[in-house]
Amino acid sequence: MSIERPIHTAEILCVGTELLLGDIVNTNAAFLSQRLAELGIHVYRHTVVGDNPERLRNALEAAFAEADLVITSGGLGPTYDDLTKETVASFFHCPMEMHEPSLQAIRAYFERTGRVMTKNNEKQAMMPRGCTVFPNHYGTAPSLAVSNEEGTRTVIMLPGPPGELCSIFREEILPYLKRRRESVLVSKNIHIFGMGESAVETKIKDLMTESKNPTVAPYCKEGEVRLRVTAEAENETTAAEMCDGMIAKIRATEVGEFIYGVDVGSLEHAAVELLKEKKLTLACAESCTGGLISKRLTDLSGVSEVFLGACVTYANEAKEKLLGVRHETLEAFGAVSEQVAREMARGVRERLGADVGISVTGIAGPTGGTPEKPVGTVYLGISTQNGEEVRKLSLSSMRSRDYIRKVSASNAFDMVLKLV
Amino acid sequence: MSIERPIHTAEILCVGTELLLGDIVNTNAAFLSQRLAELGIHVYRHTVVGDNPERLRNALEAAFAEADLVITSGGLGPTYDDLTKETVASFFHCPMEMHEPSLQAIRAYFERTGRVMTKNNEKQAMMPRGCTVFPNHYGTAPSLAVSNEEGTRTVIMLPGPPGELCSIFREEILPYLKRRRESVLVSKNIHIFGMGESAVETKIKDLMTESKNPTVAPYCKEGEVRLRVTAEAENETTAAEMCDGMIAKIRATEVGEFIYGVDVGSLEHAAVELLKEKKLTLACAESCTGGLISKRLTDLSGVSEVFLGACVTYANEAKEKLLGVRHETLEAFGAVSEQVAREMARGVRERLGADVGISVTGIAGPTGGTPEKPVGTVYLGISTQNGEEVRKLSLSSMRSRDYIRKVSASNAFDMVLKLV
Repeated sequence: MSIERPIHTAEILCVGTELLLGDIVNTNAAFLSQRLAELGIHVYRHTVVGDNPERLRNALEAAFAEADLVITSGGLGPTYDDLTKETVASFFHCPMEMHEPSLQAIRAYFERTGRVMTKNNEKQAMMPRGCTVFPNHYGTAPSLAVSNEEGTRTVIMLPGPPGELCSIFREEILPYLKRRRESVLVSKNIHIFGMGESAVETKIKDLMTESKNPTVAPYCKEGEVRLRVTAEAENETTAAEMCDGMIAKIRATEVGEFIYGVDVGSLEHAAVELLKEKKLTLACAESCTGGLISKRLTDLSGVSEVFLGACVTYANEAKEKLLGVRHETLEAFGAVSEQVAREMARGVRERLGADVGISVTGIAGPTGGTPEKPVGTVYLGISTQNGEEVRKLSLSSMRSRDYIRKVSASNAFDMVLKLV
Repeated sequence: MSIERPIHTAEILCVGTELLLGDIVNTNAAFLSQRLAELGIHVYRHTVVGDNPERLRNALEAAFAEADLVITSGGLGPTYDDLTKETVASFFHCPMEMHEPSLQAIRAYFERTGRVMTKNNEKQAMMPRGCTVFPNHYGTAPSLAVSNEEGTRTVIMLPGPPGELCSIFREEILPYLKRRRESVLVSKNIHIFGMGESAVETKIKDLMTESKNPTVAPYCKEGEVRLRVTAEAENETTAAEMCDGMIAKIRATEVGEFIYGVDVGSLEHAAVELLKEKKLTLACAESCTGGLISKRLTDLSGVSEVFLGACVTYANEAKEKLLGVRHETLEAFGAVSEQVAREMARGVRERLGADVGISVTGIAGPTGGTPEKPVGTVYLGISTQNGEEVRKLSLSSMRSRDYIRKVSASNAFDMVLKLV
């Protein structure tokens, strides 16, 4: 029966030698940080230590100098070097005892998956006295929260595998943490394409700096900008309404026309949803993106409703054979040209019988640039029964091949959103 | 003129509020950890703090309780909140002074990229007295190393953007750190496909557990296993020979036939190199992988020598129109079948005039499975002028769409390696 006080600040403490060897990337820390930011809980530090009780104990000590909450990942497995739970229990002077419901759940898990339970797995059901146990439907390690007697320090322990950690966090920890906050936070993400981060910031500087609730924070990833609008209120409805008010204000600025959605997954997701809504089919012709547009589209399950197929025409001959681009056009203007982009888009639309055809041809580098057409020169075409349109990109030739390909693909999706 | 003593232990300290908000994943820590592990430098902890001098100072203090070396990333930019360099200088009681070569390099960078240099950027050329400056050809922030007077504590500061950090590390920091080790470590990576991690471990258990120098460590990523062989010796030649001896022993085991290369970049890289060597061209027909094979091939600059193009035939009609798969074959056997894989591979090879055609058709899920053909059923075809061969995969239907697509694409590259 521990007291639970409101939580304001947190530290994320990941346990695992494989992280220190660099064998895996610490996606758990980013995931947890995002969720805590959404809850309005400030994260001051991430720490990673190996499976070593002394270092773990020191890290807990250091964390609680500032934080009310420590979230750990890892070290809840059945083997002798999984020591997170035992170390935290000893830190809080809690004795360990068998937790019968967890033992039964672990037994049931092994029966369900047809595997043999070992004596080791029983260790996973031992819990610090007085802790809150969260069930794990995805593995054998239950999650738990332990607090000190005063209720001012809490450790939430989660398993290391990201699939388990994310699912348990969403299902069990999020409600638990919401309950331990004094107010409710709601965040909405505005997705922007076609305007750079600094331009966005300039246009809405007043809204960003003057508004304390909701707050407006920008973040950017290759070629895209997102604005996270976060409102704090006594209940969810009020906070959501406050967000919507701010979003309306931002839409009314010059940024408005570059907004392609609020809380949509990605540009490709928004483009596919638009095509579904209009009952239109899509075909692609890719040169420099080399399959990336198709790959991003087919990352989305159920895209077959919209996406018929694509031609990756890397060689000039392939452009002629698969898309019917005329030899003379290639000779006269070169493969990276407005004219070829146009013929590629029309060709793939006609050959596959799609409503919309999109095309990309460009120079992704690092080689292949010329003074007239430097690395970063990209033409995108879109074709419908009403004709073709072409967009030219002149990305910096200092950019990586990877960046140029990603931004080109994003522009193709943006053209679908703007022009269909 | 600082003394430089050998380095044995390190801590990685990443600076950036965007990491604490979870807006970006800390790939730098994993990259640096891998490189340090290869050098035989033990990493005891990762820490992430915000752009806050006091927390950064505390983190340095804590790190040097155990480590000889701290590598920081981030906080070297031109704005007022970039404070890593200033904080480290003050930690070591070094005055800051203008570093003329860096100032000139920054000026040249701005001229080259056609942008205007601001007064802020001059700050990036201010350096702690006596530090070692490493040039940055990828951005404006030079990297640097500073040591205390006794040479027992060193901080290496790197810029935050992963592209810059990785390039500078490889070009500048690696030689610097090699010089500061007492012995030389050489690592070689054995790439294995088609045998799982636990099977590999069973087959070479004795070699792995008994050999202390070279060491053999396995690590796996989707569908692939790598063995890192690391030898320590007084010079590079001896260490490399020791690695080669161990690699020969491993090749002589049952694992041998599943090795597709040593220190090759990836399966697709090995496949492309083989085709280049044999002067053969390649075309692909992709259904469930939806462009991923082409995307992975075109990630490699210079692949146009080998790769002509691909058809992403997501819809059945596209398989008929673009590849000439017969309607009757699709009707009789279904799109996910040995027969269709065969016709797709032959069709794309013939239509594009390639020497080798590869094809994939399968069910990536999460929907679309049937009792006869569950999610994870994938057929791969390869066609040459000598005829076709087909490989069937039955991946677990519990696997994610992403995993099934990746492993299918990897199998396509493996077929090129085994059958061409």
